[in-house]
Amino acid sequence: MSFRAPIRDLALALKIAGHPALIGQSFSELDEDTVAAVLQAAGAFTQEELAPLNRVGDQVGAKYANGKVTAAPGFADAYRAFVAGGWNSLSADPEYGGQGLTKAMELAVFEMVHASNMAFGLCPMLTQGAIEALHLHGTERQKQLVLPRLVSGEWTGTMNLTEPQAGSDLAAITTRAEPDGQGGYRLTGQKIFITWGDHDAAENICHLVLARLPDAPPGVKGISLFLAPKYLIDDAGQPGAANDLRPASIEHKLGIHGSPTCVMLFEGARAELVGELNNGLAHMFVMMNAARLQVGVQGVAIAERAFQQALAFSQERRQGRAVWSAEYPAPLFGHPDVRRSLMLMKAKIEAARGICMTTGVLADRARLAPSEAERNAARARQELLTPIAKAWSTDIGVEVASLGVQIHGGMGFIEETGAAQYYRDARIAPIYEGANGIQAIDLIGRKVGMENGAVMDALCADVHATIEELRGDAELKSVAERLEAGVRALERATDWVIENKGPNALAAATPYLELAGDVIGGWMLARQAQATAGAADDWSRSKAALARLYAGQVLAGAPGLADGLMDGAADLEAVTFEALEA
Amino acid sequence: MSFRAPIRDLALALKIAGHPALIGQSFSELDEDTVAAVLQAAGAFTQEELAPLNRVGDQVGAKYANGKVTAAPGFADAYRAFVAGGWNSLSADPEYGGQGLTKAMELAVFEMVHASNMAFGLCPMLTQGAIEALHLHGTERQKQLVLPRLVSGEWTGTMNLTEPQAGSDLAAITTRAEPDGQGGYRLTGQKIFITWGDHDAAENICHLVLARLPDAPPGVKGISLFLAPKYLIDDAGQPGAANDLRPASIEHKLGIHGSPTCVMLFEGARAELVGELNNGLAHMFVMMNAARLQVGVQGVAIAERAFQQALAFSQERRQGRAVWSAEYPAPLFGHPDVRRSLMLMKAKIEAARGICMTTGVLADRARLAPSEAERNAARARQELLTPIAKAWSTDIGVEVASLGVQIHGGMGFIEETGAAQYYRDARIAPIYEGANGIQAIDLIGRKVGMENGAVMDALCADVHATIEELRGDAELKSVAERLEAGVRALERATDWVIENKGPNALAAATPYLELAGDVIGGWMLARQAQATAGAADDWSRSKAALARLYAGQVLAGAPGLADGLMDGAADLEAVTFEALEA
Repeated sequence: MSFRAPIRDLALALKIAGHPALIGQSFSELDEDTVAAVLQAAGAFTQEELAPLNRVGDQVGAKYANGKVTAAPGFADAYRAFVAGGWNSLSADPEYGGQGLTKAMELAVFEMVHASNMAFGLCPMLTQGAIEALHLHGTERQKQLVLPRLVSGEWTGTMNLTEPQAGSDLAAITTRAEPDGQGGYRLTGQKIFITWGDHDAAENICHLVLARLPDAPPGVKGISLFLAPKYLIDDAGQPGAANDLRPASIEHKLGIHGSPTCVMLFEGARAELVGELNNGLAHMFVMMNAARLQVGVQGVAIAERAFQQALAFSQERRQGRAVWSAEYPAPLFGHPDVRRSLMLMKAKIEAARGICMTTGVLADRARLAPSEAERNAARARQELLTPIAKAWSTDIGVEVASLGVQIHGGMGFIEETGAAQYYRDARIAPIYEGANGIQAIDLIGRKVGMENGAVMDALCADVHATIEELRGDAELKSVAERLEAGVRALERATDWVIENKGPNALAAATPYLELAGDVIGGWMLARQAQATAGAADDWSRSKAALARLYAGQVLAGAPGLADGLMDGAADLEAVTFEALEA
Repeated sequence: MSFRAPIRDLALALKIAGHPALIGQSFSELDEDTVAAVLQAAGAFTQEELAPLNRVGDQVGAKYANGKVTAAPGFADAYRAFVAGGWNSLSADPEYGGQGLTKAMELAVFEMVHASNMAFGLCPMLTQGAIEALHLHGTERQKQLVLPRLVSGEWTGTMNLTEPQAGSDLAAITTRAEPDGQGGYRLTGQKIFITWGDHDAAENICHLVLARLPDAPPGVKGISLFLAPKYLIDDAGQPGAANDLRPASIEHKLGIHGSPTCVMLFEGARAELVGELNNGLAHMFVMMNAARLQVGVQGVAIAERAFQQALAFSQERRQGRAVWSAEYPAPLFGHPDVRRSLMLMKAKIEAARGICMTTGVLADRARLAPSEAERNAARARQELLTPIAKAWSTDIGVEVASLGVQIHGGMGFIEETGAAQYYRDARIAPIYEGANGIQAIDLIGRKVGMENGAVMDALCADVHATIEELRGDAELKSVAERLEAGVRALERATDWVIENKGPNALAAATPYLELAGDVIGGWMLARQAQATAGAADDWSRSKAALARLYAGQVLAGAPGLADGLMDGAADLEAVTFEALEA
């Protein structure tokens, strides 16, 4: 079925996230009308131009032949339309041709891009990362000659991190960068899993590459960041001769077939340094924060798309007698078990959307807030929420896509129906941009302990404040009670993971991240219900129902989740590989 | 990677399930040596003959051309080897050529068949259903001429239930059966999703078909069961002329590509009645109990296969520094988060295996137990556990296959790795043989209320008895405590679903089934730990660790799950379709 842009839900999530307060602080002329107009226009573009290509992207996919990659049918034209519509440059600095909108607005637009066509969305998403890297760390030449082309979308960008032996562990990178004696470098090595590493949709591709100088220190402190364009760029900024780099193949993947995932060979490729020597990993991490949040949004997006298709099917498909329908055969939507499943999908989507948009607004506030104290507080909370936004939302993407298949019954397993594609596409998001286990370790290892736990404490205090507001509200009393039990469980678990460093905390990392997401997601739903309280329309009234359902089906499990994660790692440490073998 | 038959885990699950007590009661000469020998031989056959075809079955699959289906490469030969090895006839009545082993033994063997090659396993699994139907309800002619060929495996069987408008609701079946005036019938209609509906691996196919006589009452009370062979069977039992039925196409599916899923056209096909007129649904339900349990076992099987591959990868793949390894790079198995994930997968597999094998032994006891009271009690508990075995185990199949992909990181998303196939294959099991939502409704609607709740009460009483035994055991004290909280939560929830008929109970059906599976699964693990207590080997000692891990990560959530499901359905009833639309 076709995609419908979830404008009102996105607008609500932005509102809850505090986006309206940014208006006037942004360096663009952002006002409420602009926000609404941008969301509407993005909705129309994604519905009309990108969604219709999602299927052919899956079925035909990108192709590799004779050392070149051809984008899936229609994708190159769609990319040019995307660029022509200005969608590539929403949040970029106007100095380099951007429109200076907020990051949060851009995220909202990208949610629709990913929902309409996740494989397509990866191309501009990776370009965003390159824009960010050059904006923060690029040389003047790079800013003048390269950045505007990336902002406009004439050229695209990639991130070349992973090598066969270096996935989660970037310290193991071996790609070599040798000075060419003229201020530049020559890169030699192999990179894998390079998203949109080659294609025919833009006139040049700017590869950002992590590599190591011959005399660099070992480990992460010897990694530098380089820019290696597909076609060498002359001093007028024109692309010319081909560089000594090429795609060796593309992967045959479970999903996102429209996104070419390349093995890239650098064979003495000419490259320029970006940022400081041996500080490449830190530069890359700046980009990765944004990319991780974007991937979280992909989780929301694919869940939204899967939900929409399941919801539509629940109205079209008729089967049996249902307690909530007088018709026979009744639409699936009349069956309580189906409706519960749909409501749970929807509630989790709104919870994850709330977390992602909140993190996006925090990224803006970290730049735009009037005082340094506010900016620092926003940045700290952004850093705390980023691994949760990434991992929790992408897990939900998989879960909701799976429920979407289930609601279709036998039809869900037939590829023509489309539900199966979402189930396949969704599966990559918990893996790339830092596997969800890495996110969980980042959360307990680097984030929860920031400022001696004060960043998480402040977040929990805000949750308590909402709980106090909800207590007097008869409609949301049960939500307040379960949210309170949930946040207390999170506080207990937080104290425990801070006290228990080492294996105990590492073994608890994933359940802890799940608990944090469950509770913060419940807080988002509670505030969405608060914000729509009193309105009489069906949509507004459904928000309180979603918050209550989530409180019963998700938040009620929080105390048990906290108890379990505090068991410690002794059993895990003692078990042997052989004991688990068949 | 190759499949390893999980013999010791299967033997333990059979022991816990009470299989040893059946020895001597079975109508075959079953003894402990036979049990061990059969499991060993089945393990060898599945490892050597079936597992190597799993990949080509996925990549090439079954093919449809010119009105005929060709099995995937190697599958027809493998089927003949399967039949020649006697694997098709394990539990069938020796009077018709079977070996008279227990159903539970057969299930254990089929778990290995499905794990090695789920798409292949469906062919003999469907034949089992046809054997069961003819054994119970066939005419003398059918028993003499058809049954022995199905038992030997020379011919295969299918179940033709679903029609485009009749999936979960079999009352909507419209396939017509018209008397031919000579004691037979002519079938006309279209059936969909017919597993192994056509192929070239056996010399005849016996279709069991639900259809309706022209003057039959409407609804489920007008459905009869027919036998329509692909090739008509003469009075000497020889297949001759082709019948007027044919596959119209095969489906393009998410997974199990080696299993041809046919649209079947019956164009005046000659058929014989099986059982009583208008009682076909009841006859079919007898088969479906067995088939549902088999599908539950498929869930265990695909989870086992996915787990094995992830476990092997966790030893081969090295990445980063790990707290539980002195090596750099360390094997993934040295990382607490990876090990926790693997242990949780393993614990859930053993819990589900325990439930399925217990249900299998109950099916045997329902036939073989010495007294009628024992047989009735066994049958009632078998009926109670069947929807749980089916739904809970297949949900775990999907969950574990998804975790298996995750442990592989980026490699998991690449089809060549193999983990993705399990993720795709696993997804069908929660859907077919009664979607899991239907199982949940069966559980709360027909099963939990049996004998005024006494069947579930007796099960919970057995769980309490185990808890009392565990209390004195220092190793399993925490398991006892969490199992007790879990079973009390289940008891509360049981009372509630029995009291709350209608929408409230229907809305709670899926969470209730999940709760029941979580608690009964925890009971299985506790008893596996009891049974291996005291032994010093790694495998035995891991059982207590698995029970504790599961108690913390799963059972600890039971009280919250119970609380949430008792919220009632008012919010679901009130929400409108439009409120959920984008």
